[in-house]
Amino acid sequence: MSQVATRSLSDRFADRTNVFGTSIWTSILSHKEKHPDPVYFGDGAPAPELLPISRLAHASAHVWEDATSALNYGDSQGYLPLREWIVNHVANRGIDAEANQIIVTAGSTQALDLAARVFLQEGDAVIVENPTFLGALEIFHTFGVEIIAVDCDESGMRMDKLQDALAAHTNVKLIYTIPTFQNPAGSNLPLDRRQRLAELAREYHVAVFEDDPYGDLQYSGEVIPPIKSLDDQVVYFGTFSKVIAPGLRVGYAVAPQDVITTMLATREVSDISNDRITMRTVYHTVQDGFLTGHIQECCDFYRSRRDAMLAALEREMPAGVSWSKPDGGFFVWITLPSHIDSERMFDVAANYGVVFFPGEWFDPEHRNNHAIRLSFSTVAEDRIAVGIKRLGEAIRSLQ
Amino acid sequence: MSQVATRSLSDRFADRTNVFGTSIWTSILSHKEKHPDPVYFGDGAPAPELLPISRLAHASAHVWEDATSALNYGDSQGYLPLREWIVNHVANRGIDAEANQIIVTAGSTQALDLAARVFLQEGDAVIVENPTFLGALEIFHTFGVEIIAVDCDESGMRMDKLQDALAAHTNVKLIYTIPTFQNPAGSNLPLDRRQRLAELAREYHVAVFEDDPYGDLQYSGEVIPPIKSLDDQVVYFGTFSKVIAPGLRVGYAVAPQDVITTMLATREVSDISNDRITMRTVYHTVQDGFLTGHIQECCDFYRSRRDAMLAALEREMPAGVSWSKPDGGFFVWITLPSHIDSERMFDVAANYGVVFFPGEWFDPEHRNNHAIRLSFSTVAEDRIAVGIKRLGEAIRSLQ
Repeated sequence: MSQVATRSLSDRFADRTNVFGTSIWTSILSHKEKHPDPVYFGDGAPAPELLPISRLAHASAHVWEDATSALNYGDSQGYLPLREWIVNHVANRGIDAEANQIIVTAGSTQALDLAARVFLQEGDAVIVENPTFLGALEIFHTFGVEIIAVDCDESGMRMDKLQDALAAHTNVKLIYTIPTFQNPAGSNLPLDRRQRLAELAREYHVAVFEDDPYGDLQYSGEVIPPIKSLDDQVVYFGTFSKVIAPGLRVGYAVAPQDVITTMLATREVSDISNDRITMRTVYHTVQDGFLTGHIQECCDFYRSRRDAMLAALEREMPAGVSWSKPDGGFFVWITLPSHIDSERMFDVAANYGVVFFPGEWFDPEHRNNHAIRLSFSTVAEDRIAVGIKRLGEAIRSLQ
Repeated sequence: MSQVATRSLSDRFADRTNVFGTSIWTSILSHKEKHPDPVYFGDGAPAPELLPISRLAHASAHVWEDATSALNYGDSQGYLPLREWIVNHVANRGIDAEANQIIVTAGSTQALDLAARVFLQEGDAVIVENPTFLGALEIFHTFGVEIIAVDCDESGMRMDKLQDALAAHTNVKLIYTIPTFQNPAGSNLPLDRRQRLAELAREYHVAVFEDDPYGDLQYSGEVIPPIKSLDDQVVYFGTFSKVIAPGLRVGYAVAPQDVITTMLATREVSDISNDRITMRTVYHTVQDGFLTGHIQECCDFYRSRRDAMLAALEREMPAGVSWSKPDGGFFVWITLPSHIDSERMFDVAANYGVVFFPGEWFDPEHRNNHAIRLSFSTVAEDRIAVGIKRLGEAIRSLQ
């Protein structure tokens, strides 16, 4: 068998596989190992304390009592009562949709991948915010498309720059945006910019992908409606990962009928459906107003952590450092003095016992190299204080 | 909002979406509606009577007792104890693999889609059996690749024709085969052909995708080892859908390390992981020898149904009709007299109250238009007798 064992087919792999480099998780793990007790500000996950486990377990047991019909193939578009529940849930945010305009997916990641498969092919371009969600960049890269990064200010994407980008590139298929409590910047796009974004998308006949994983998690400030509520052609992504649990892989897209129909056809040749037991488990968990109350509890919990982080930053950061003050979501975006490189900061801070994502990872053009992202969602308040103190020391060591 | 409501972006969809036609399920549904009590021989699913629901429910309750660590992001390659269990399971079929050469996926459909994303790009060709699994054809079509169909006889793919195809096409990336209890033909590829297939794949430096959803379900005849056991470069697909339940979406691929690593990177930008609770539920269900006993029970059950179908065909089929005698799996492949078109047969039989998949759906070249596929897995023996009698009448009506 030695001939067989040494033959590799990696030279036959498709070109799209060239985009995969070393996993960021390898890098995170090695940085955590530099200190015996690191504070980790890297999570994009909910706090374990908030997982509604007993409610989920109860719902699961209920579903298993009468599971026969849920164990065959089926529900490719998603369990209908769950889709009907989502109709009501997004209506609270001003989105008017029917159950057949919704597809339930394995997290919003799959929804984004399916929607990208509907729209994107080589030669196309995608407009993104700079900085933007790393996972979305990775998805777009596998389609071999051009990424056009539009500058943001503290309120989010700049509409003058968006217009410039649309005018300069005729191959744009879609604008990918996280307008609400942006990942990583924490910004909340003002209503007039949301209206302008929808207007520009219509004018240039491009799709809008509105990713909204954090919209339910608002701790302060004005509530701003999603772009989807201003333009029904928007492809909107939601998820239960941040308010229930990511390990169940339940998210969704709300989109025009022709987009949903094509996402569904794509899904039927990808993974057929979500786990049908889990869709029912999530449905029985969220209903009867449970999720509304649970979200309120989550907001109170995360507000305290956000406040603890902002207070610690106020205490510990040297002059020349600034940061966002997010009204929701999980992230504070720190802008370091321009002489400090974010990857260098990542390395040095790990020795001080604080680990986070360097800003460069979120920058499609690798320019924003003096910013870092801190997540407060999974770190207790006393540990936030310790971590930010260490970060201050690490920054001072570079000055 | 009228301007917004009427704007459609379907003219911006990617070319790959052009492959989606009318869903076969629409056609199946309308054919079922032609008779008040149709016998349906279309299922590729296990019999509901065999679903191990109480064992699954018990396993699920056990997992929920200590679920916190399973509810975060993680397990992208699959729950490690489940992968270790799969190592032992495939070892029973002669496959030598380590847990890190396995990825757990949302059914084997996702495994096939991920592996296709690793290998395929426009300009490539894929060799398939004629007839072959409809779902695989649909996946390959979305990659815009050329499909090359190789003729089969009653034992499966003809190796002389495979060699001709490989010699004639320099753009072949992979051979897709279901050697064991083939869908739809029910054939079982002999060992010497399996050896020859692996040899040809090595000679032409192309990948082998071995799809094996039915290998565990053998009712008679000689056990023939999978191609994967003869060549460790084969990408092998297995699933729990046929022996546990399809609605849970748990399957897997066993492949060389470089293929698994790239499938995993692709998976992390597709849906991140399977439902982590479900992977643990399946693990606790199959372990301690349960699946071995359950498979034995399934085999006894399906053997009776297969025998009932073969006996009914013997009784009811007019001269000029022939059929496969499968040693395992779910399907009998019926070859009609050459003047009967399979789509016509599909229409006429529905009026007689019997519904199945016409052979044309499995033929990449739309030539095999006088064959039909009958599944016996979900039809009780008395109903099999009724359905085959109706089929005989329908065939006679066309003579």
